[in-house]
Amino acid sequence: MTVTAAQGFEAAGIAAGIKRTGALDLAVVVNRGPSQAGAAVFTSNRAKANPIIWSQQVVVDGVVSAIVLNSGGANCFTGPEGFQVTHRTAEAAASALGVSAGDVLVCSTGLIGDQLDGEVLEEGVLSAANRLGSDEQAGADAARAIMTTDSKPKTVVVDGGGWTVGGMAKGAGMLAPGLATMLVVLTTDAAAEASDLDTALRAATRVTFDRLDSDGCMSTNDQVTLLASGASGVTPTLEELTAAVTAACDSLASQLQADAEGASHDITIEVVGAVTEDDAVEVGRSVARNNLFKAAIFGNDPNWGRVLAAIGTTQAPFDPYLVDVSMNGVQVCHAGRPDRPRDEVDLTPRATHVLIELHAGEASAAIRTNDLTHDYVHENSAYSS
Amino acid sequence: MTVTAAQGFEAAGIAAGIKRTGALDLAVVVNRGPSQAGAAVFTSNRAKANPIIWSQQVVVDGVVSAIVLNSGGANCFTGPEGFQVTHRTAEAAASALGVSAGDVLVCSTGLIGDQLDGEVLEEGVLSAANRLGSDEQAGADAARAIMTTDSKPKTVVVDGGGWTVGGMAKGAGMLAPGLATMLVVLTTDAAAEASDLDTALRAATRVTFDRLDSDGCMSTNDQVTLLASGASGVTPTLEELTAAVTAACDSLASQLQADAEGASHDITIEVVGAVTEDDAVEVGRSVARNNLFKAAIFGNDPNWGRVLAAIGTTQAPFDPYLVDVSMNGVQVCHAGRPDRPRDEVDLTPRATHVLIELHAGEASAAIRTNDLTHDYVHENSAYSS
Repeated sequence: MTVTAAQGFEAAGIAAGIKRTGALDLAVVVNRGPSQAGAAVFTSNRAKANPIIWSQQVVVDGVVSAIVLNSGGANCFTGPEGFQVTHRTAEAAASALGVSAGDVLVCSTGLIGDQLDGEVLEEGVLSAANRLGSDEQAGADAARAIMTTDSKPKTVVVDGGGWTVGGMAKGAGMLAPGLATMLVVLTTDAAAEASDLDTALRAATRVTFDRLDSDGCMSTNDQVTLLASGASGVTPTLEELTAAVTAACDSLASQLQADAEGASHDITIEVVGAVTEDDAVEVGRSVARNNLFKAAIFGNDPNWGRVLAAIGTTQAPFDPYLVDVSMNGVQVCHAGRPDRPRDEVDLTPRATHVLIELHAGEASAAIRTNDLTHDYVHENSAYSS
Repeated sequence: MTVTAAQGFEAAGIAAGIKRTGALDLAVVVNRGPSQAGAAVFTSNRAKANPIIWSQQVVVDGVVSAIVLNSGGANCFTGPEGFQVTHRTAEAAASALGVSAGDVLVCSTGLIGDQLDGEVLEEGVLSAANRLGSDEQAGADAARAIMTTDSKPKTVVVDGGGWTVGGMAKGAGMLAPGLATMLVVLTTDAAAEASDLDTALRAATRVTFDRLDSDGCMSTNDQVTLLASGASGVTPTLEELTAAVTAACDSLASQLQADAEGASHDITIEVVGAVTEDDAVEVGRSVARNNLFKAAIFGNDPNWGRVLAAIGTTQAPFDPYLVDVSMNGVQVCHAGRPDRPRDEVDLTPRATHVLIELHAGEASAAIRTNDLTHDYVHENSAYSS
């Protein structure tokens, strides 16, 4: 059901002709109310795509009527013409849906530096507006239309008890904090103020998408949007809302990790015994970004020395010679020295768990990443051709 | 001639039995004087190998009589036993050479987390001490004995005009600033105080090894050492000394880059128009560490969008929408927008030049890196097996 699971939402996904392959490439999600509250978080990359620059303005007043998403082109570093294409897209949606263009978010994904054809976008939006539906197929089509190198759509539904959070996501590479080349739309029929949506969404992304670091590469186009229609008539507490949104984000982050380009292992790096949560995140991220560690995991090699070499580059307070490291349950390093033999570690399962005990404090965090594989290199050396 | 090119130095490289393959694995370089001045720079990784911990103490007084280097094991994260092996190695050299153990540097390279056999090291040092020579073969053997995954020895000789700087290096992966898994020994027969050696060496490494960032992975064992015998009787100015040492480091850094594990392109990222040199380094490094950019270069794909996405993650002051990017002489991006067609760029040569004009100031810097290839993944997934 994805984004149409929550009452008050309609969606469509169509082939607008942006992708040369003829695949679905344009999605529209509309909030029919009664309320039209929205919040969004954006890439922290200073190099921001035109739709990001547009959408950051749209969301300021907390009112969002619709969101248009296209694959087949990122509309990033395309100059004023590119910004005009984004603006024209929003205007087309506004006209077709009878809403204000200033309440229409736009998201794009695909290759950076190529111009999108404004006429193709405009016609696509009009066509999609004529096919909106609130059924399962409509939501499924929208989820499929935002895919780039994704091998499958990513969707989620969380039951809040009388209200629902539904969502869809795309993203398979350029996955790093500050958000990935990742577009996410979450919808809920809960009644909630935009400020509460914003609080819940930031709390949720901080511990889910922001801790997914597949390849250390931060995108120019990331956006996670949460829209609320109030159609259920239920007003959850902020805690209830945050919990449901976090559960939805966690599921989608897990699906993004599982579909990361070329990956053969889904790695969870759990850091415990840190002084602060930020320290734990920094330590986990240093491992998630270490190509030698990632290549070793691809080779099913429990090379814990690369873990210690990576965390030694951080500023987090701990003594490298007190650290314990376990891989898939086997403690291979104790107090900065070899412990159990490497060959006791079985790295053949896709799910891989690395536990790092810093012995410096009480804080912890988990970072999700993937291994560095031949297929990653292949897919990313051939992306634009 | 490598480290024996300068007068006053003897060297040996032998097969001590540390490597199971029977290859050369232990080198000794001795400074016969008349003076025994030395300086060294070390990895900035907080996870430091035992020989680093030892050598940092040895070099404090500026007197270095000899250096022992082994491949076949990094002696890192091996606990107090590992430190005793390093100590025993220095004692063995001191005894065989008639010098103080406190004036003997030790360097190790190889897998992290494996114990070295102290007896094998001790016997190896005694054997090497019996084969010391000042001829070309002795220097060549030493350069070969420190190799790990290197495909060839790296050596250099710089003629100072009546005095000489010679050197050898090893390193093929884990190449990142703060120094790489990289051992370098430079010798000179110039007369120089240890403090001047230190100044010259830091100035040289700052613009050479510290700007080589092959794979973003910082090692635990890096050490660059400069020894001066004064045997030429010539006392160069600090400027002359710095220039010669920098030339030697630049040549060795270039050789390290050219032999980087699995690489098919040697990439120079030249950043101009930065506000400060540090900004230029930060911008260049962000590109050098971007796996998507590096995979694109492997695929001969001039994907300049990935350059802009990478530099957008830095804190350096510039406007991403004013930036120009050229690849191998073709300006593919002007003012943050597409310029010349991508297909005009020929990326088939191994030497690759990326020019980034920030239009923010007058400072510049160049970072050297390599592409991300199938062979890199292969070599680093199979290293320890």
